[in-house]
Amino acid sequence: MPTFHIEMFEGRSVEQKRQLAAALTDTTCKVLGVEPQSVDIIFHDVKPENWATAGKLWSDPR
Amino acid sequence: MPTFHIEMFEGRSVEQKRQLAAALTDTTCKVLGVEPQSVDIIFHDVKPENWATAGKLWSDPR
Amino acid sequence: MPTFHIEMFEGRSVEQKRQLAAALTDTTCKVLGVEPQSVDIIFHDVKPENWATAGKLWSDPR
Amino acid sequence: MPTFHIEMFEGRSVEQKRQLAAALTDTTCKVLGVEPQSVDIIFHDVKPENWATAGKLWSDPR
Amino acid sequence: MPTFHIEMFEGRSVEQKRQLAAALTDTTCKVLGVEPQSVDIIFHDVKPENWATAGKLWSDPR
Amino acid sequence: MPTFHIEMFEGRSVEQKRQLAAALTDTTCKVLGVEPQSVDIIFHDVKPENWATAGKLWSDPR
Repeated sequence: MPTFHIEMFEGRSVEQKRQLAAALTDTTCKVLGVEPQSVDIIFHDVKPENWATAGKLWSDPR
Repeated sequence: MPTFHIEMFEGRSVEQKRQLAAALTDTTCKVLGVEPQSVDIIFHDVKPENWATAGKLWSDPR
Repeated sequence: MPTFHIEMFEGRSVEQKRQLAAALTDTTCKVLGVEPQSVDIIFHDVKPENWATAGKLWSDPR
Repeated sequence: MPTFHIEMFEGRSVEQKRQLAAALTDTTCKVLGVEPQSVDIIFHDVKPENWATAGKLWSDPR
Repeated sequence: MPTFHIEMFEGRSVEQKRQLAAALTDTTCKVLGVEPQSVDIIFHDVKPENWATAGKLWSDPR
Repeated sequence: MPTFHIEMFEGRSVEQKRQLAAALTDTTCKVLGVEPQSVDIIFHDVKPENWATAGKLWSDPR
């Protein structure tokens, strides 16, 4: 039943998401002993202007 | 005070969201005994390429 | 595939969650035309000291 | 390590997000005694048709 | 309508949460021009064993 | 910057979380080309009475 929400910067390709979903699911099944069918992964594409670290937006020069 | 976050595939119409919000709120008020004003519902439209089950993106053929 | 996250104050009984889960799923299937098996609902019990509205914790007198 | 997720209606300017991120981080560091580098803030822009209060979408007349 | 979810390590006092909620709400109202009543803040206390950075749990020696 | 939220049933050991965090981070770095330091993973332990699929709580007999 593990459900993943993964927030990352927009711009990753569908191929990267495809590889990531497959590999993360495989890893999770091995470590937790669950079936692949029970693993859901939801990606959230985040714009740099919507993410701040140390009080500064990632769309701003660092 | 119940706050809902509902992730579902993009493509649902505003009319479906309108009906769903009304009905979910009504149900919640009846079961929990809360006032409608206290119920917030936030929908998140998810692209099929951003959701994977069993390690496979829903934008890929199954 | 709809996945619900519902944050509400702690203290609801298992029976209330049971009724709420059943009714919300039923409503969702009718409005969206999806199968019950595709609906996941996750409840998050929140302590009043962990929820603030208008800048005031709900564990404090209002 | 505090990580903020802030859901708000779409339409806020980058300048408002910039000011908000800076001020919220500053406040958090003062109250919790953490370093700015440890504070992450992620904004989620929500369309009015995706948010309902009291069973009514905010894109509908109230 | 801004709704905050703040994940931070468990162990903060109610007084720290009280101060943080008040100050964050005040800041948000000033920057966004919204009413205090529209701001909700939900804190999530996270155990060090439930948070990892760089692949290492915070309950483990770094 | 990827930030993971992983909801799963309570009961996993710290050792399982340790292995999972390490392996998921490693996988993410390889596929996305990011540094380990940029990957945060937060686990949420969910009680069976707080998770429903197909309208039925997982604490109930299926």
